[in-house]
Amino acid sequence: MSAPIIAIDAMGGDFGPHSIVPACIACLAEFPSLHLVLVGQISLLNELIARHSGVDRARLHLEQASEVIAMDDRPAQALRSKPDSSMRVALELVRDGRAQACVSSGNTGALMALSRYLLKTLPGIDRPAMMTAIPTERGHCQLLDLGANVDCSAEHLYQFAVMGSVAAEALGVARPRIALLNVGTEDVKGNQQVKLAASLLQPVSELNYIGFIEGDGLYRGEADVVVCDGFVGNILLKSSEGLASMISARMEALFKQNLGSRLIGSLALAVLKRLQGELAPARHNGASFLGLQAIVVKSHGAARPEGFQSAIRRAVMEVREDLPQRLHGRLEHLLL
Amino acid sequence: MSAPIIAIDAMGGDFGPHSIVPACIACLAEFPSLHLVLVGQISLLNELIARHSGVDRARLHLEQASEVIAMDDRPAQALRSKPDSSMRVALELVRDGRAQACVSSGNTGALMALSRYLLKTLPGIDRPAMMTAIPTERGHCQLLDLGANVDCSAEHLYQFAVMGSVAAEALGVARPRIALLNVGTEDVKGNQQVKLAASLLQPVSELNYIGFIEGDGLYRGEADVVVCDGFVGNILLKSSEGLASMISARMEALFKQNLGSRLIGSLALAVLKRLQGELAPARHNGASFLGLQAIVVKSHGAARPEGFQSAIRRAVMEVREDLPQRLHGRLEHLLL
Repeated sequence: MSAPIIAIDAMGGDFGPHSIVPACIACLAEFPSLHLVLVGQISLLNELIARHSGVDRARLHLEQASEVIAMDDRPAQALRSKPDSSMRVALELVRDGRAQACVSSGNTGALMALSRYLLKTLPGIDRPAMMTAIPTERGHCQLLDLGANVDCSAEHLYQFAVMGSVAAEALGVARPRIALLNVGTEDVKGNQQVKLAASLLQPVSELNYIGFIEGDGLYRGEADVVVCDGFVGNILLKSSEGLASMISARMEALFKQNLGSRLIGSLALAVLKRLQGELAPARHNGASFLGLQAIVVKSHGAARPEGFQSAIRRAVMEVREDLPQRLHGRLEHLLL
Repeated sequence: MSAPIIAIDAMGGDFGPHSIVPACIACLAEFPSLHLVLVGQISLLNELIARHSGVDRARLHLEQASEVIAMDDRPAQALRSKPDSSMRVALELVRDGRAQACVSSGNTGALMALSRYLLKTLPGIDRPAMMTAIPTERGHCQLLDLGANVDCSAEHLYQFAVMGSVAAEALGVARPRIALLNVGTEDVKGNQQVKLAASLLQPVSELNYIGFIEGDGLYRGEADVVVCDGFVGNILLKSSEGLASMISARMEALFKQNLGSRLIGSLALAVLKRLQGELAPARHNGASFLGLQAIVVKSHGAARPEGFQSAIRRAVMEVREDLPQRLHGRLEHLLL
């Protein structure tokens, strides 16, 4: 296939281009055929790029956009009143075929609304879902939805399961084990939506549905794809992030206080630092918007360069696997 | 007040009396006026007690019960077909005024069903809720509901907020900050139940309602009482437990692998061990059943002796504060 071209909303997120530009430059070095189109205020972007040496400018393109969607703009505002926002222009590059994917760390609600409006959903999909990789004791699992849909019917959960399974396959998992997140593993447990979704998934032999999973089972790695509504997924992800931060902070404090010598403390802290990225999966890994006709990856608003780099990496994978086309093929069979 | 008497379901949980008896003996030493009534197979209990020296048998009573409710018994089964279960007999001691509280690490659904049947709910309370203390960056917060109610209306969430606030006060927090768990902190965020519950809480000046809280805000200690439906609370608690276990295991592995000398590794691991209890709040702290006419505390099924001890400690606190009576007084004012 041809070299991937990815449109980057270079102005989004808490740190904006100061975090995004270094991530982009690192990705160009990591993927020798990758082209990036950075969308935003060209003068500022040029200034930040000039701080780095050895940048392959032939693969780093710039596209002007005069406006920025704020983290607290409402989706409707973003849709109606900022026609030249960096986020919108980046998505338009995808819509117009000038890029194959868009990566943004901007306002999630605005990105979802603009993505749906500009790129449209796949046939059979009512609502796109957000999915990310969560570290587990055995590797990773894909969790969806992460907050795009706070109220979900059983049919939505079923659609998420199908999309998550196809996406996990594309990311390299053979016959992904799909589970529904629930308060217990017995059939009688859970709310109506979850029980009904289970009855929709059970008879589908093309899907490797393994049943209900609990919150601790997720981290034990009992499934490859874990499906829940966006309310639950968002709470799980953010509380995990908060718990991980708290544990890191406490461990740092304990090691600083308690270990006899400074040497031991600093060795222990070095080990801790290596865990930090994984301890905050939401900040570290990008989240895919699944169910659109094109590829959109959301990076965490507070992502540091390594986090944004992970999001670009995810977009590159999805471009290589032509995820929307793959989803379309399977969905036609499983949904329509 | 008189010496507290607590009925203990001595046969429940994954480790049964082998974990419960040592916890009880430790609590008798910790609280010099405490009386415990251990309910179960007397011969087995006597055998386990005899392994300890210096036990004040004058404060350790035994009550025979011939049956045990299994962890996978359905609540209806527990109600109908096991009239002489240790759990039921322990609750009957409370109902009959022979004990002021019951602590069990048995089947949660069965304990809730038997508690409601034998002890009844307080006037104005549709459904009891489960609440536990979660460690935060600033101390602790009380989280409810933890799984007793998977579908909740706004009115239920309101009742949980009132009960959580009164209970937190009884546990020593002045004017507890109450928050509703949500996917964002802005008014427009969330599902209908949460938005409506917010509108019920806002006008009540007796309650210190501070608004929505996100999963990470909970661990940052932004509220003293965090309210959610039982589905969300259960997923949050169990996923936190799973994440904490995973982090502990990874850290152990990293320290064992990477630190140059065994000495450093063992020092680091000693520091880690001290965090373990807090890292698994569900296993460590007891959960209160709020909204009943008497005190019932649930210990985690997999609780080790220290965990069961925490649950007894929680029951002692609630007896001292006469929590059901306190709840009754406030509920009359705020609900009826």
